Amino acid sequence: MHKATTIFRKPPSVVTWAAVGGKKENEGPYGDRFDKINDDPYFTRATYEEGESQLQKQAVRIALEKVGMKESDVDVLIGGDLLNQCVGTTYGVRDYGLPFLGIYSACSTMSEGLLLASMLAAGGFADTAMAVTSSHFCTAERQYRMPLSYGGQRPPTAQHTATAGGALAVSPEGEAPYVRGVTIGRIVDMGVTDANNMGAAMAPAAYSTIREFFADTGMSASMFDHIVTGDLGKVGSRVLCEMGEREGIDIRSRHLDCGLMIYDSEAQDVHAGGSGCGCAAGMLCGYFLPELKSGRLKNILFAATGALLSPTVNQQGESIPSVSHLVWLSSDKGDSEI
Amino acid sequence: MHKATTIFRKPPSVVTWAAVGGKKENEGPYGDRFDKINDDPYFTRATYEEGESQLQKQAVRIALEKVGMKESDVDVLIGGDLLNQCVGTTYGVRDYGLPFLGIYSACSTMSEGLLLASMLAAGGFADTAMAVTSSHFCTAERQYRMPLSYGGQRPPTAQHTATAGGALAVSPEGEAPYVRGVTIGRIVDMGVTDANNMGAAMAPAAYSTIREFFADTGMSASMFDHIVTGDLGKVGSRVLCEMGEREGIDIRSRHLDCGLMIYDSEAQDVHAGGSGCGCAAGMLCGYFLPELKSGRLKNILFAATGALLSPTVNQQGESIPSVSHLVWLSSDKGDSEI
Repeated sequence: MHKATTIFRKPPSVVTWAAVGGKKENEGPYGDRFDKINDDPYFTRATYEEGESQLQKQAVRIALEKVGMKESDVDVLIGGDLLNQCVGTTYGVRDYGLPFLGIYSACSTMSEGLLLASMLAAGGFADTAMAVTSSHFCTAERQYRMPLSYGGQRPPTAQHTATAGGALAVSPEGEAPYVRGVTIGRIVDMGVTDANNMGAAMAPAAYSTIREFFADTGMSASMFDHIVTGDLGKVGSRVLCEMGEREGIDIRSRHLDCGLMIYDSEAQDVHAGGSGCGCAAGMLCGYFLPELKSGRLKNILFAATGALLSPTVNQQGESIPSVSHLVWLSSDKGDSEI
Repeated sequence: MHKATTIFRKPPSVVTWAAVGGKKENEGPYGDRFDKINDDPYFTRATYEEGESQLQKQAVRIALEKVGMKESDVDVLIGGDLLNQCVGTTYGVRDYGLPFLGIYSACSTMSEGLLLASMLAAGGFADTAMAVTSSHFCTAERQYRMPLSYGGQRPPTAQHTATAGGALAVSPEGEAPYVRGVTIGRIVDMGVTDANNMGAAMAPAAYSTIREFFADTGMSASMFDHIVTGDLGKVGSRVLCEMGEREGIDIRSRHLDCGLMIYDSEAQDVHAGGSGCGCAAGMLCGYFLPELKSGRLKNILFAATGALLSPTVNQQGESIPSVSHLVWLSSDKGDSEI
């Protein structure tokens, strides 16, 4: 019988990556970790949407350039973002002319993209499988909440969508970091209806997937340097750690949330933290992958979370279903004897 | 070197499927092929969006029931639709609690879902991988064009979004039909900006992928009973066949388009034909898969096409990028000596 978790017998390698950010992300604690910063929220284009596409285009190009690869070396590009019909991605990468698989997983897009790229590489279907995603404060605010010019006040539970993104490539052979395993998330809906409190809506999905990974593998939290979530923020992180404690799973002592890392919560006025596909993707490609490559980190679980609502159904009174896909990343190829 | 095309050494099997439609689809030439018809456009729910979710829920349940499978037998469900943030799918399947991968590929969603399900099954990552998608005339019209109550007049090139959907499951072992190969499509944008002429925008993507499949495999059109596109309609189908003729690829003599099949173009007032994720998915699950199972059809290429625009960027003056993923389906497992 199959499980939601796959442990790779031959762990594929993350062979290159790039993180791109905006002005506010540059001013955060990890600003110097981004490969490229764009101070202009339009990215020199005419609209915010074109700007977000430009961000993804940059991320893919920089990731390839780092290792001297050409677009023609890529067998498949897997990508998506928060914008309606994922246009951040499709307009961003159309000029590359690569075989393309569109995905939608809200802010867990980088988890899903990395998971699928790893399966396609490990399954023999691609020598180089890329994943890309992004988010943009200005496109997300007007689509999900209010146009920026409205100047609406945000409640303390609200998070700030990162103007950021990341791209990476996975190959069957290569150096550290390695993708040792993945868990495909299940949709979890605990009835939260407040679109200004995404963290609370998403925390149960993260917990469901992390718990399932431990149950499927027999591993425990103590075997990992960090358990990394995408953008639970202050509220969702507290919920996640408490859910773990109730069932004897210690997440708290090694939990990091990209939404709490990317900005200085005191100095940068981001309320409950950062959010968006690009928050987790930027921190993964800017910080965690380099730390794993250098060996400063040995093993992490990367479980970005996505809130799968749309403004339309939320306004119809629906609650917010969420999902979290998990990737076990390691500096060590291991013998995968689980 | 890898190519966009994969020919499976051990072709996985499509083990079950189901097609669900609405009233207009029931009145079309293939109405009796749908497993379930819903005369009520609300599907007994309060909103059209909830109705579309209900459609996907039905399709998954019926496909499982046909072969006596339970939800717990499914290792992964892959799905998406046209609605913003793919809420037709996420709200439709959330109650099933399955490991879930969201995809976005507009009206080529069933091609992408079947392609990925086949790779996950053939790669050893799933014993049962499902794919599901849908579209709904009332949700699509108000999201992409005008609310129905506006009563806007539609130009002759416009197509009618099908209220339909389909679900299927792929396993490494099983009976016919088999998935012999797949080609991951590339994004193609020839500069069409008219959102009421999707067929013309999508035809070059279909042609790009079909041509690539033939080039990668050395096969030719004469080896297939039909080359099936998703919803090119009258205009796009003419463009596709002409593009083939210019380069000596005979698509015309065996071309079928689900958008031209699903309705009676004389009697049902659908202008250039049907469209939507559910058009191709409904015809695949209602007609083509049963015909392949019975052996009345031997080999088809199923290349649904998706227009990757959003209303926002289209109104900003952007053209319409498109993609088409291709699946070679066969009544014969073959020796796959390509």
